[in-house]
Amino acid sequence: MKESGRKHGALSPCAACKLLRRRCAQDCVFAPYFPADEPQKFASVHKVFGASNVNKMLQELPEHQRSDAVSSMVYEANARVRDPVYGCVGAISSLQQQIDSLQTQLALAQAEVVHMRMRQFTSSTNPGGMDMTVDQANMGESLWSC
Amino acid sequence: MKESGRKHGALSPCAACKLLRRRCAQDCVFAPYFPADEPQKFASVHKVFGASNVNKMLQELPEHQRSDAVSSMVYEANARVRDPVYGCVGAISSLQQQIDSLQTQLALAQAEVVHMRMRQFTSSTNPGGMDMTVDQANMGESLWSC
Repeated sequence: MKESGRKHGALSPCAACKLLRRRCAQDCVFAPYFPADEPQKFASVHKVFGASNVNKMLQELPEHQRSDAVSSMVYEANARVRDPVYGCVGAISSLQQQIDSLQTQLALAQAEVVHMRMRQFTSSTNPGGMDMTVDQANMGESLWSC
Repeated sequence: MKESGRKHGALSPCAACKLLRRRCAQDCVFAPYFPADEPQKFASVHKVFGASNVNKMLQELPEHQRSDAVSSMVYEANARVRDPVYGCVGAISSLQQQIDSLQTQLALAQAEVVHMRMRQFTSSTNPGGMDMTVDQANMGESLWSC
């Protein structure tokens, strides 16, 4: 949890209070997560979620979860700034496409392994190259379609 | 693009104007996307992004992209309501883990295919079961490690 960047007791406001032009109190809810030297972090969440919503969301969480919540909000806000139509959901959709493609490739590779094992099995039990029995042929077919 | 649910010319306000307790004008920016019979859609984006941010984000987009933008904002807002710490980013992280796992499984399956092809190759070129040459053995090794 990053809580640096704040000079406790000093007058230097956090990035949020600086942008909102307000006094940065000692117990400011933003200060631990929005240090003055990273103004872009707050600018993004402010633009996308609004300062009062970010404030409310942080207040509703126990302190030990606030740092993760800020990180995810900053990520989401940056995604929305980059892609105002799809935001984070664009990334989700592209990852889901990758998963679909990997699952197809995996199914093909696994089917090939099964097929090769069947061929190995039939050639070891049928070394003379005689025709397979109907059962062996059907077994191969059904394994291919799994 | 869903633009139904609105009685043009009638006094029935859209879900957004109803929640915000304001008059729903004929050219209301929310009305085409937040019909009165789906109040939860606007309630979520209002809670997470704030009505004025949603308004601003929609105004900044050409009309033909607004429906997709609303869908992605509703998706994001619902994810944040369900998981106030990670929101959508929780889903992204879980999809990335699935991708890592699928990539590992795929690499293993592909390596097995290569290994079996090598065994097939060596047994067809070396049917007597004689020892492989050093080159053949090394080739198998290097294919395994790819």
